[in-house]
Amino acid sequence: MQNFVWETPARVHFGKGVIEELPEEVARFGRRVLLAYGGGSIKRIGLYDKIRELLKDCEIVELTGIEPNPRVESAREGAKLCREHDVDVIVSVGGGSVLDCSKLVAAAAKYDGDAWDLVEKNELAGECLPIIAVMTLAATGSELDAGAVISNLGKKRKLPFMHGPTFPKAAFLDPTYSFTVPAWHTACGASDILSHVMEQYFVLDANPIADGFCETMMRVVVEETPVALTEPDNYDARAALMWASSWGCNGLLSLGNGPSAWACHAIEHEISAYYDVTHGAGLAVVTPRWLRRSMTAETAPRIAHFGARVFDLAPTGDVMEDAERAVRALEAFYAKIGMPADMEALGVPDTENVDAMAEGAFTAFPLHLAMKPLEREDVKAILLDAFRK
Amino acid sequence: MQNFVWETPARVHFGKGVIEELPEEVARFGRRVLLAYGGGSIKRIGLYDKIRELLKDCEIVELTGIEPNPRVESAREGAKLCREHDVDVIVSVGGGSVLDCSKLVAAAAKYDGDAWDLVEKNELAGECLPIIAVMTLAATGSELDAGAVISNLGKKRKLPFMHGPTFPKAAFLDPTYSFTVPAWHTACGASDILSHVMEQYFVLDANPIADGFCETMMRVVVEETPVALTEPDNYDARAALMWASSWGCNGLLSLGNGPSAWACHAIEHEISAYYDVTHGAGLAVVTPRWLRRSMTAETAPRIAHFGARVFDLAPTGDVMEDAERAVRALEAFYAKIGMPADMEALGVPDTENVDAMAEGAFTAFPLHLAMKPLEREDVKAILLDAFRK
Repeated sequence: MQNFVWETPARVHFGKGVIEELPEEVARFGRRVLLAYGGGSIKRIGLYDKIRELLKDCEIVELTGIEPNPRVESAREGAKLCREHDVDVIVSVGGGSVLDCSKLVAAAAKYDGDAWDLVEKNELAGECLPIIAVMTLAATGSELDAGAVISNLGKKRKLPFMHGPTFPKAAFLDPTYSFTVPAWHTACGASDILSHVMEQYFVLDANPIADGFCETMMRVVVEETPVALTEPDNYDARAALMWASSWGCNGLLSLGNGPSAWACHAIEHEISAYYDVTHGAGLAVVTPRWLRRSMTAETAPRIAHFGARVFDLAPTGDVMEDAERAVRALEAFYAKIGMPADMEALGVPDTENVDAMAEGAFTAFPLHLAMKPLEREDVKAILLDAFRK
Repeated sequence: MQNFVWETPARVHFGKGVIEELPEEVARFGRRVLLAYGGGSIKRIGLYDKIRELLKDCEIVELTGIEPNPRVESAREGAKLCREHDVDVIVSVGGGSVLDCSKLVAAAAKYDGDAWDLVEKNELAGECLPIIAVMTLAATGSELDAGAVISNLGKKRKLPFMHGPTFPKAAFLDPTYSFTVPAWHTACGASDILSHVMEQYFVLDANPIADGFCETMMRVVVEETPVALTEPDNYDARAALMWASSWGCNGLLSLGNGPSAWACHAIEHEISAYYDVTHGAGLAVVTPRWLRRSMTAETAPRIAHFGARVFDLAPTGDVMEDAERAVRALEAFYAKIGMPADMEALGVPDTENVDAMAEGAFTAFPLHLAMKPLEREDVKAILLDAFRK
């Protein structure tokens, strides 16, 4: 078991109706609020009106229209609003994209320069505005971490922005807000949660506590996602997915393990940067191919163990066969929840950018730390394989 | 899934050598330190000298000789020292008893009255001195909660003291400090950890995430305790137990479940209050009997599920039989790690105080919330049964 430091700054409010506590959390920081959100979904479900009513004694300025795969332009605009209105606290309402954008806003508002500088050089970030996260989608787990992913389509870059002070001070998780999330986004969110866990689970030095946490979360995603898809207002299924999503990146799943490479995220971010695909869908295309490319005598027992623990696969006596069966079970799960199986289904037309993507994947992720260390040729092979049916 | 609020104020430093960060944590609060510890074990392992060296720039006053089942007298003495020396921060070094005493010291130092008042009426407690916990024993998990258990042998009372501000600000968990813990205390600690999990696991409204966490922790205790007993300096076994112990009471194991009764703790505290037995040993005597007394058509599936998940017992088709086998597997585990099986082995001579203990068990615990609600007759029957071989 490796050494670690663990700290969770956020106070989590979980369950139906917890939004009533929002004014109290906001008041900890002041009364000038940047209200950040995406499109109209929070208006359709009545959450926008509810929050405006709850915060009626605050001065509110709005940052709206934050896009999926949030872009640096939105963060620049948010930072400008924060400076102009001397904002005390950011209330981020939506999914991980809104929250990721809010994190860069929080840092850029206190930075005397361009927001993209902070993404390219995380160490330039300093003090941040406090963030309160109200989640409407179970996916990124950004509410319990200090990381964001920001896209710069002009530069064809999608990069992580990691900075401790962006960890939200409070998070509101009301599963009923996710009842109206469409099937596609529910499934993409589930794929993202599952990937977050797998990225931390597929290491060769795991400890039994971390393994138990990871296996719990993976089983929950595998069992509850189909329920949420067929019964969108099943509270317990939505609740389990929402709480699992918060665990994806909160650090607890890998405490005591060595570092993870986050290989599938590295590769998928490149696909998103070039083709603006939905992150969870891209992960479903990449992950089985990454597992097959990583399958060696050393790693197969781990992949087979995953199959046994998450999909209840009985060992055959041949560990390579068991590992292959585990990957097939994962593919079957993706198919069951409607995820694409290849690049064509994902909407990537051709192999034109494969070399550039294979190079880009190494920019921000330690791919040499993957359970089978990855070279550029490995990433290229994974990407090319994704064009095969 | 039930609503919840979750917050973890402590920064956890886990692993070999992490004590080096102690001066930095202390400096957050000041330089006048109450150093609280028990007997000589921290001197034997060199930890006392190490801490005095690390804190050589602090003014240190010592509270020593804190006993197992810590007594209100020690807390009174500690509070007096804190007031006399205008202490800024308490550094608690030892197991849960030292830390529990430190928690009452932290509150009593700021309370204008007798420390026992705070135990009898927790709501009288207000502001507290900050506490930094350095753990040498895997057992109570007191480092990640806001609770303590304090004994008043004069009054034959052993009662919980629950007060939010006593949650430690930082915790140092170095598994190597537990290498020299004798087998008896290692096993009693393991029994305590297992009980903390079981108290939260045996409910009828569990959710799958809480279940996964609980089953992980119970399996870790069952698998790693025998390793730690035969190889006392097995780092990974000691580390797994130490981290599991921190999870026993940190609240995460039951998030989203309804309230727990903590029935075995209620009953064991009475035995300890009358006979000063070691808590974990008392729990091993009480728990199987509580499970059998609680076994009904409604609860048996839950007990059987425990047997399947924790002890890998295959279902027989008869759920009452499966539940009974699960209890027998638990008894076998207790026997394997050297826990007593009955009151005589525990050192309780006769049934003289059974009525008083059965009454006392209801003082501080909501036993009507147990999975089979407990009446006084149930508690009496459990206690009497413990005198049978």
